[in-house]
Amino acid sequence: MVNAKPLVSIISAGMSKFGKHDGLLTRELFAIAAAEAFSRCPKLQPKQDIKAMFIGHMGEAYEHQGHTGSTLADWAGLAGIPATRTEAACGSSGVALRSGIYAVLSGLADMVIVGGVEKMTHRTTAEVTEYLAMASDYPFEQFHGITFPGLFALMANAHMHAYGTTEEQIGMVAVKNHYHGSLNPKAHMQKEITLQNVMGSKYVAWPLKLYDCSLITDGASCIIITKPELAKKYTDQPVHIVGTGQASDTIGLYERKTLTSLQSTKLAAKTAYEMAGVTPDQINLAEVHDCFTFAEIMHYEDLGFCKEGEGGKLVERGETRLGGHIPVNTSGGLKSKGHPVGATGTAQAYEMYLQLTDQAEKRQVKDAQIGLTQNIGGSGATAAVHIYRRDQ
Amino acid sequence: MVNAKPLVSIISAGMSKFGKHDGLLTRELFAIAAAEAFSRCPKLQPKQDIKAMFIGHMGEAYEHQGHTGSTLADWAGLAGIPATRTEAACGSSGVALRSGIYAVLSGLADMVIVGGVEKMTHRTTAEVTEYLAMASDYPFEQFHGITFPGLFALMANAHMHAYGTTEEQIGMVAVKNHYHGSLNPKAHMQKEITLQNVMGSKYVAWPLKLYDCSLITDGASCIIITKPELAKKYTDQPVHIVGTGQASDTIGLYERKTLTSLQSTKLAAKTAYEMAGVTPDQINLAEVHDCFTFAEIMHYEDLGFCKEGEGGKLVERGETRLGGHIPVNTSGGLKSKGHPVGATGTAQAYEMYLQLTDQAEKRQVKDAQIGLTQNIGGSGATAAVHIYRRDQ
Repeated sequence: MVNAKPLVSIISAGMSKFGKHDGLLTRELFAIAAAEAFSRCPKLQPKQDIKAMFIGHMGEAYEHQGHTGSTLADWAGLAGIPATRTEAACGSSGVALRSGIYAVLSGLADMVIVGGVEKMTHRTTAEVTEYLAMASDYPFEQFHGITFPGLFALMANAHMHAYGTTEEQIGMVAVKNHYHGSLNPKAHMQKEITLQNVMGSKYVAWPLKLYDCSLITDGASCIIITKPELAKKYTDQPVHIVGTGQASDTIGLYERKTLTSLQSTKLAAKTAYEMAGVTPDQINLAEVHDCFTFAEIMHYEDLGFCKEGEGGKLVERGETRLGGHIPVNTSGGLKSKGHPVGATGTAQAYEMYLQLTDQAEKRQVKDAQIGLTQNIGGSGATAAVHIYRRDQ
Repeated sequence: MVNAKPLVSIISAGMSKFGKHDGLLTRELFAIAAAEAFSRCPKLQPKQDIKAMFIGHMGEAYEHQGHTGSTLADWAGLAGIPATRTEAACGSSGVALRSGIYAVLSGLADMVIVGGVEKMTHRTTAEVTEYLAMASDYPFEQFHGITFPGLFALMANAHMHAYGTTEEQIGMVAVKNHYHGSLNPKAHMQKEITLQNVMGSKYVAWPLKLYDCSLITDGASCIIITKPELAKKYTDQPVHIVGTGQASDTIGLYERKTLTSLQSTKLAAKTAYEMAGVTPDQINLAEVHDCFTFAEIMHYEDLGFCKEGEGGKLVERGETRLGGHIPVNTSGGLKSKGHPVGATGTAQAYEMYLQLTDQAEKRQVKDAQIGLTQNIGGSGATAAVHIYRRDQ
């Protein structure tokens, strides 16, 4: 049993269904997630108890709407509290969580709601691609026409070249995550696929095919965190955050020493592991940032779940599938649950909350004590890693 | 003498010249501000000492570039540290400062750089107006064609109707701030104007005329904050932050109970004053958010510098001019120093740093002990108020 000391404790969590929400505004979508979090915790008096809000929201272009911190606070019934939007591309709510932890630990805000949201499906794929590209380097990447599938394809290429990782192994991540997503009633796509489906799908940027790419999705998520000593006043089943790490890297791939791993993930993970006093082999389950299937393989290695270069074999052996020794992305991940970019970081925390309170139903990991989430921005210029522990 | 207890201490500060910086990218502009802050503090080893960064940056549209936290960390020579962009419209770096204070107080980051930046002048006025509008309510304001001059004109109208505030009094804010700006070598416009210039300028949205509006400006600013007990290791002249308040309000004006004051400012100020143990009459100087001249009059009242409805008379009597009993916007304010939106909040803190270390040269306020900054987002859906004390 691991006795990592809690930094903060999660007393509730909420998430909209991920998918297509025609006709809803970002603010309405977030209110759905907040309402679930409030209703899960009857002892909470939101307007009175919650002292600050941090919201991950990536794209003001989708609705021509910035300043979303205050807007979402109002729509969640919390107008008045300090409400701050954080943006770090697809890592926006991972860094919101980190910012919320600072706030609770500061003593200035005993209870904080952290969340994220993105409304994307009302835009065309071309528009979404353009908006997402803002998270990569304008003068050195965007300007030359490369978008995210291309950037991750470069990394996949380098990994295949260095370690012999195969297209099939990469495709197995999609198969696994779709299987997990088929067990999650809030996932965008709830259907299993085969390796043949993946291998037969169209190339987007070699070696990545359509089925290697995460989804364009609408969704919102949030968790409510407080001081560990206050948590039991609100719930019998808190989940403790025992480690937090955040790191940055160059925004452009061209400046990095390697394309086969993310320095930001390694740094953030090192900080989080040390703070928690936990080693990678003690992690029972993880949600990692599978914006493209290949990325998940790289993350296994950067997070220490296997040795460098062995991520492909890890998924091939089924070790990261439900029932394996370290199930990864039991929620379905970005690939099958969907990737409403600003919402993704705290949606990972939502899954961890369900798993570590035995509420994950068909996809429940038995006896899980310690979980990890890893959320990145863009091609890895930002990474946020958090470690969670079941209440004992 | 006021003995408010420091929360955090500023050990250095930097600011680019505000104005037109043709050919520079946002990241390069910020690097100028960071370099000044580093060079002002020779004992600082930035890469080693600084543990986190919060950056206010409002508009990803200007350069088709989001994810600016990590980007600016890299360009400032700090790649690797946790770097988070905060966005709350024109209050983006006011909330970055608040977020940085949480981080220092949390114990997870002893030293933090907080700053802000905006590169605006390479865009047309129509583009800038459109991008700024994203900080107002899309469905209920933008959609109907109202932009920020119109929103602040509504408030000015209501104030004139309720209290008899005059167009001349509103114009006197511009005259005062241009006088102050003429003494600031980093101000965008360094020229005095007359009340006749203001009154004769074209109406933008009655009663606000061209000279009542702040400037479209390029600029960057930052401060470096640390625990009070560490500050003296780095500088003999720290400036202490003794109070912090942040609050939100409805994004749309239509939902508010009044148009003659900002609830967010009042709430944030109340929190900051109480934390500092300071009353409004103890404030020796202030930087407030004069995005439009009228706003400054409303802020006087909301911050308690005078009674409700008497802000117009306060400026008319010259009490907020250098030499008056509470000089406001000695930097020139947004009106004359300029308003690179994301940079404005920490540019206010930069001015406070100079003033409370006797480095403000021609615009130095003598014997100032306590200062206040107030930074708002949009039409006041966000407000951040900070109180500063000279080292004793």
